[in-house]
Order: sequence, then structure tokens, then C-alpha cells
Amino acid sequence: MSRCLISQKEVQSFIERCMVAVGTKQHHARSLAEVLVEGDHRGHYSHGLNRMDMYVKDIQTGICAKDGEPVIDKESPATALVNGKNLLGPVVGNFCMDLAIKKAKEVGIGWVVAHGSNHYGIAGYYAMQALKENMIGMSFTNTSPLVVPTRGKECTLGTNPLSVAAPSKDGDSFVLDMATSAVALGKVELHERRGDSIPEGWGCDAHGKITADPKQVLNGGGLVPIGGSEATGGYKGYGLGMMVEVFCGILAGAKYSNHVRTWKVTDRVADLGQCFVAINPENFAPGFTTRMADLLAIQRGLEPADPDAPVLTAGDPERANIAKCEKLGGISYHINVVNYMNECAKRVGVSPLLPCDKIIPE
Amino acid sequence: MSRCLISQKEVQSFIERCMVAVGTKQHHARSLAEVLVEGDHRGHYSHGLNRMDMYVKDIQTGICAKDGEPVIDKESPATALVNGKNLLGPVVGNFCMDLAIKKAKEVGIGWVVAHGSNHYGIAGYYAMQALKENMIGMSFTNTSPLVVPTRGKECTLGTNPLSVAAPSKDGDSFVLDMATSAVALGKVELHERRGDSIPEGWGCDAHGKITADPKQVLNGGGLVPIGGSEATGGYKGYGLGMMVEVFCGILAGAKYSNHVRTWKVTDRVADLGQCFVAINPENFAPGFTTRMADLLAIQRGLEPADPDAPVLTAGDPERANIAKCEKLGGISYHINVVNYMNECAKRVGVSPLLPCDKIIPE
Repeated sequence: MSRCLISQKEVQSFIERCMVAVGTKQHHARSLAEVLVEGDHRGHYSHGLNRMDMYVKDIQTGICAKDGEPVIDKESPATALVNGKNLLGPVVGNFCMDLAIKKAKEVGIGWVVAHGSNHYGIAGYYAMQALKENMIGMSFTNTSPLVVPTRGKECTLGTNPLSVAAPSKDGDSFVLDMATSAVALGKVELHERRGDSIPEGWGCDAHGKITADPKQVLNGGGLVPIGGSEATGGYKGYGLGMMVEVFCGILAGAKYSNHVRTWKVTDRVADLGQCFVAINPENFAPGFTTRMADLLAIQRGLEPADPDAPVLTAGDPERANIAKCEKLGGISYHINVVNYMNECAKRVGVSPLLPCDKIIPE
Repeated sequence: MSRCLISQKEVQSFIERCMVAVGTKQHHARSLAEVLVEGDHRGHYSHGLNRMDMYVKDIQTGICAKDGEPVIDKESPATALVNGKNLLGPVVGNFCMDLAIKKAKEVGIGWVVAHGSNHYGIAGYYAMQALKENMIGMSFTNTSPLVVPTRGKECTLGTNPLSVAAPSKDGDSFVLDMATSAVALGKVELHERRGDSIPEGWGCDAHGKITADPKQVLNGGGLVPIGGSEATGGYKGYGLGMMVEVFCGILAGAKYSNHVRTWKVTDRVADLGQCFVAINPENFAPGFTTRMADLLAIQRGLEPADPDAPVLTAGDPERANIAKCEKLGGISYHINVVNYMNECAKRVGVSPLLPCDKIIPE
């Protein structure tokens, strides 16, 4: 098992050429590639290059729109409702987040929701756009049903992620980017492939019972909300998943709950609902970044329970992954992923991922 | 062990007369009493009459201000920064939530943060004010450090609750009102008094290790964030607790993290930070309450894993408690609570809780 190092620039270019080859507009392809590369760069491989073929397929089959741009249905100085026109998620996401930031510059906050959107990659990408303007950013999306509500045994909510990014000093920041399920489906799949059990509190079986067997979760069961069982506070995670649905599908007039199409089944348009928020700290108490820096320093400075596992703040693991990429001079992918992507490139008639001459041990 | 039934009106009046007796302004006392009665009415006894003596003491000692009203430091059409002037939490909370709703009527959203505030009772009280205007409401507050960050062994965050309320049809609603810790401290105390163990995932000992022994949590340990250990996703709850801190102490320029005074130690002013939000669904897609009703119906209509435990949505347990109070014709308190409160009344020189002629079995 070995990994292949590819420069960030080449991954960006590769995704762009694959997407353009199937008819995506150049600037839409660029937006998508930027989000996916950022996913990998931050170490969230499940939301990066790995998922490119899904987007390629969405454009090829026409289930996702190639032409047009998002439009504003309705707006006020602080809010907007956007029709994503069934375009690629990152096209809709960038449009909405830019709009939210513009409004936050004017009146201190921008709260923008979109219907007619598609998978948009990592939620954190959009929240982090606000950091460039020294603002707090937030982003929420609903997703296909994979989560079983507390006391239930059927999936009626997505992993419904939320992201909140807040600027600190000297380029430092707090970046929370989390699913409202205990874990992502990919983690359960990984344990199943390895033949490992999963911790109690990740998922339940078809009878709604918490299980340590990943097979039970994947075959008729489902993920459970953060907090796990009812006794350990799973109803809170369930409530948070519902909150995301209220901000997304319900507020935007998009699909919601079990009306969202089944995961990986693309028989009809996704019509996802998404929510994007920018908040300008300048409208509140002076000294925001100074306090943020202190807040982060308090947590990071704590004596850890285990000397080998320092106390972190949200965004620190991703920061470490970015530093690793920079040290290596690129993003390292499992060789199987690279081979799979190059088959994909062949099918759509573009050149493969290059250079791939640097093989590093896993 | 028996319980005593007291009319909601009498609880309201009792709290008002105790507070006024120690020098609280009549309308401030009324605001506080309304929040505490609502806490009990909803079944959150830890945030109701039970806590009145804390507020009485805060006014008596002068650690909380009797005179003045909150003032707006800074505002835009959509935002405001409020100085709570160290007044009672509910006085600050009502002022801010009214302001947020006013802004949401004008520009679709109002995002108001306050510094110089105090304990404000249940967070849900403020979020629910928005329901009266068919709006989404949110409320957040920081609190004294009781929660140990993931990987740490020292409390640097409060239970930092968040509340989100959204209107459905015919007076129905979604009301999420939750601490970002796995449970409230009171639940751990209750188990300790009964000599029971606690579920894994509620708290940790002084070494930061998850424990089932409530004594260990209370003696040098602490509560853990929703999700419990790192393996079961506790870092997400920790991130949510930090998010609340960003919206409250950091954005408002109030005390934050371990700078907030120790729980139950009132040697200095609290200077809590709080955040209040109103969002007007009319600024977004038409048909909000119809979709909300469907979303709630989907969850409530699910076949439950256990036929005796129906699937609920956030706010349903509280709704059941309110129905119970209405059926009984009042709120039922443990006789020890009533006796304790009447001693308190005697000390401040007001008449006791009346009538208390209806004793009901527990």
C-alpha cells in the first residue's frame, strides 16, 4: 500500500479538465475544483477528489444543470432567498456566501438561504470565506436521509452538517465543521471493510438499537445523532439535525427530511436547501480577534489528560494536515484513488493526474 | 414524599413579592418571575422557583443591579450591541429579544448581543418570544465553567446552552433548548444523592477520564460536552460550546471561558455574554409553517423502536408537562421546595406561597 504525491495545482487542474470535458462551464468547474481540493488539503478525503466522479456523473446525466447562474428570488438589506437553478453546489454556495458577506459589510449580518442546490463539498469552505473579511461565517446544508431520530428506526434526516468559522489574530481561526450525526457514514464503512467493531454511539440496527456492528448499521440501520443513545444525550444531536433542516430545506422551500432523494441515487434533481451567514464583528464589541486569540490560547494551553494528546480547538487537526501537505509539497492520495481517477480521465478523454512520480509509504 | 400544587398565578406573584421586598423594581421582578414560572411550567425545575433564592441574594448583596435599564451601545438595521448594565438576566434578555424581533420585522433578521448580563433562566424563553410573531427565535448564553474540553481535565467552558424555536401550524412549534454539555450538573447531583451511577458520557474525573461515578465528576472532575469521549464525538459538543462562547462572551465583549466567575460564587459581577436572534420566514420561501408542520409530522409519525416510547420532536416533552399542569390546575412542587421557599419569604418579610392545601402523591 503506498500513496502518491500530487501538487495541489495539478489536482485543481485535473478536476477542472474532467468537469469541462463533460460540458461544465470553465468557471463552474473552477469553483467545484477549489472546494474539493480544499477538502483534501484539510484532510477530509471523503469530500475531495474522491467524490469527483459523482459530480462528473451529475453533469453527464444532466441531473445537475450546466447552464445558467443562481438568481436572487427575494432580498432585504440583511437577507436573501436564492434559487440555485440546480447548478453545482459550489457555484450556488459561492454565490450565496459572497452575497452574505456583502450584506454583512453593509448592515452587520447577511443571512442567505438557497433552494435548488446540490452537494457543495465541505461546509467549512463557505464559512471560511468570511475569515478573509475578518468576519464570522456559517454554513449549513441538508443532505440525503442517513440518520435515525432518537427512539426511531428509520432514517429521516441527513448528516446535516454545520460550520462556524471565526477569525483570531495573525491568520489563526476557529473553524467548526461537523456533521450533526455522531460520525460520517464513511467512517462506519471503513470499519466494516477492516472487520472492526464500531464504538457504541455511532449507529443503530434496523430495530433502532445502538450497535457496535458496522454491518448492522449499513444494512437497514442508520447513523445516530451526536450524543448516541437517548440516555447519553442523542436527542440533542437529533435536535441539532432538525435545526439545520429548519435553516435549509424548510426556510428555503427546498426538499427536506425524507423527501430528499436517497443517498447515491440520482434519479431526480437533489433540490437541496442550504444556508449561508456572515456576521461582522465590527458591529459588536471592539477587540474581537484579541478575545478570540485568548479563548483559543486558554484551551490549547490546558494540561492534557494524556500528555501525548494535546488539547485542540476546532480547525487544529485540519491546520496540521495543511502543514503536512505544505511540507510534502502536495496532497498524498492512495494509489488506488489515483488509478481510479485516471480511469475516469480516460473515459472523459482528458490527460491523467501528473506528475505522479513521487510514491511515498503510507 | 408528597408534592404540593400551586397555581401558576400564585408562583408568579410569590416570586414578584420576594424580589420587590429586597428592592427589585416591580417590572423587573415581573420579568424574572415570568421566566422562572415558564421554566417550571415546562418541567425544567432546575431553572424555576427552585433558583429564586439565588436571584434574591444577588439583589440583596448588590452584586446584581437594581436600578437602570439596558442601553444600546451600537446598532445597525439588523444588529445591536447592548449593555445589560448588570441588571437581572431576564430584564436584559427581554430587552434584547424585543429589539431582535423589531429588526427582523424591518429587515428579516435581528442579531443582538449583550454584555453585562446575568443568569437569564431557560434559554428557550427568549427564543420562544419570536414564535408569537411567527418568527424563528434563537438565544445563547455563556455560563460559569463546568465543562471540560475534549482531551483536557479542567473546566474552561460553561454548559453554554443554545435554543432555537420555529413556528409550525395551529400553535405547534419546534423548540430546541439544550445545554452543549451532555447533561446539566443537576442531573449528576441527583444521581449522586440517590447513590446511583451515571451513564458513560456524562462527565469525567479529575484526570479527564470518563467516569460512571457521579462523586468523581463533582469532586474535581467536570461535565463533558455532548458526544462524551473523543471516540464517540465529544469534540463536536466541545466545538458547539465554543461556538456559543464566540456568539456570547467574545462577540459581546463580556467575560468568557474560565474568566467567567465560578459557579455559585458571587464575589464579583457575572458580566455574562448573551446572544438573541429573530429571523422572519416571510423574507424567505412562502409556506414556512406548512413545511414545518410536515417536518414535525414525519418525525412524530415514525414507528418507534420501543412501542411505549413514541418518537418526539424538540419541545414535545415540555408540551406534555404544560398539559399536565393545566390538567392539575397548577404546578406541583416537592413539599421541601415549598417549605424552603416559605422560609425565604419569612426572611424577606412577605406572605408565604398560597394556597397550599392540595397535597398530591408524587
